[in-house]
Amino acid sequence: MISVIILGAGNVATHLYKAFKKAENISVKQWYNRNIKSLNGYKNKVDVTDDFSKLKDADIYIIAVSDDAVSNVSSKIPFENKLVVHTSGSVNVHDLDKKHKRGVLYPLQTFSKSTNLNFLDIPICIETIDKKDYHTLKSLATSISNTVKKVNSNQRQVLHLAAVYVNNFTNQLYRIGHEITESEGAEFDLLKPLIQETARKVQELSPYMAQTGPAKRNDKKTIKKHLKLLKSEHHLNIYNLLTESIQKTHGR
Amino acid sequence: MISVIILGAGNVATHLYKAFKKAENISVKQWYNRNIKSLNGYKNKVDVTDDFSKLKDADIYIIAVSDDAVSNVSSKIPFENKLVVHTSGSVNVHDLDKKHKRGVLYPLQTFSKSTNLNFLDIPICIETIDKKDYHTLKSLATSISNTVKKVNSNQRQVLHLAAVYVNNFTNQLYRIGHEITESEGAEFDLLKPLIQETARKVQELSPYMAQTGPAKRNDKKTIKKHLKLLKSEHHLNIYNLLTESIQKTHGR
Repeated sequence: MISVIILGAGNVATHLYKAFKKAENISVKQWYNRNIKSLNGYKNKVDVTDDFSKLKDADIYIIAVSDDAVSNVSSKIPFENKLVVHTSGSVNVHDLDKKHKRGVLYPLQTFSKSTNLNFLDIPICIETIDKKDYHTLKSLATSISNTVKKVNSNQRQVLHLAAVYVNNFTNQLYRIGHEITESEGAEFDLLKPLIQETARKVQELSPYMAQTGPAKRNDKKTIKKHLKLLKSEHHLNIYNLLTESIQKTHGR
Repeated sequence: MISVIILGAGNVATHLYKAFKKAENISVKQWYNRNIKSLNGYKNKVDVTDDFSKLKDADIYIIAVSDDAVSNVSSKIPFENKLVVHTSGSVNVHDLDKKHKRGVLYPLQTFSKSTNLNFLDIPICIETIDKKDYHTLKSLATSISNTVKKVNSNQRQVLHLAAVYVNNFTNQLYRIGHEITESEGAEFDLLKPLIQETARKVQELSPYMAQTGPAKRNDKKTIKKHLKLLKSEHHLNIYNLLTESIQKTHGR
């Protein structure tokens, strides 16, 4: 049995809590948040606190707070030589207070409070400064996910950066699709199956192999039509830059 | 029973053929392609031809060829006053030869030969110049799809343009995610569940509501870290433009 204490009450903390509760060999000993009200819904299920001095003893302390607060929260944990990990994609493992045994448990997914995710499908990237702690962290991670990978801080930061492209930037392209269709009285909903199929395709094919469309074919006539249809300079700049990018990739 | 003749042997034509074969009230009377070899695999199942003069009589002729060839193929059909439709997102319905009754049947999806798609889930946008032909085309479309919408040429062109953003451009962002991860020895595969969840989220939420990440939060520290990690000017330009775009949308 691995005992854990969660610090933070955001989306990642909440999804982790739920995943830990389901796992057989993990006990959530305590849940800390600086604002205890956020934990009200859980106070009958787990010991909750907003007081660092009341933190209990546990095998692993998991800091799931905003990036800027990680370092500070780690220094406030009133113990030494405990395994303390954060869950951020972009914070260096050395930003944790060096009085601790330190590591990272980074679940690579986008979390919303309302969405029910199957944690088993979420890749978890783990790292520890001391090799001796790796086994414990790996046991914890494999209890809640089918995909656990050893990932160093540099690779993790690069994954976090790539995640911005495939998640935030992609979502912004959906947004532009929404703006373009609605402005002409067309239905964005008609694009939804295409959005899903585009994401599904790269589960099997590389994005290189999956590419289609006027930019890849260098279909100048269609590109010209599109440029004429675009009324917003901002949409136009994105069209041009990404068309150029596709043509660069596919050697046009 | 609606009888159809398909012209063309590309991905759209092939997927349409398969969908028509499954539908109870549609008979594929003939399949034309200028290169008959492409139809070799089907010659025992359907009458195939490469000769316009041998085209049979049918209720609807469906031109599923490359955009540039639509107009020419339509003029070569040796009949008048027949319902002739094309399947392109960007070709005007008036580009079909005016000797025909004209329309469009545009399935809004990305088609690869190797992928098995359930046509029932694919939205079909239909349009006819003459109202009298609308009912026939609608019957055909509803036989193979659960989502059939009346969409005029302008709206269709706008949907086709938006499809470039949510499909081709999105896929290029996946490609950049691939380039960034592989260049640092991180695994692109770890991003695949995130890619699927990003697409799934907007099936329920608007892209506006679904947005998260450093650009939306205006998290300057993380953005600065990312800009420092980016080694390719081309990746950098896309990072900057899409970050700007998100901040514009979310009023930063």
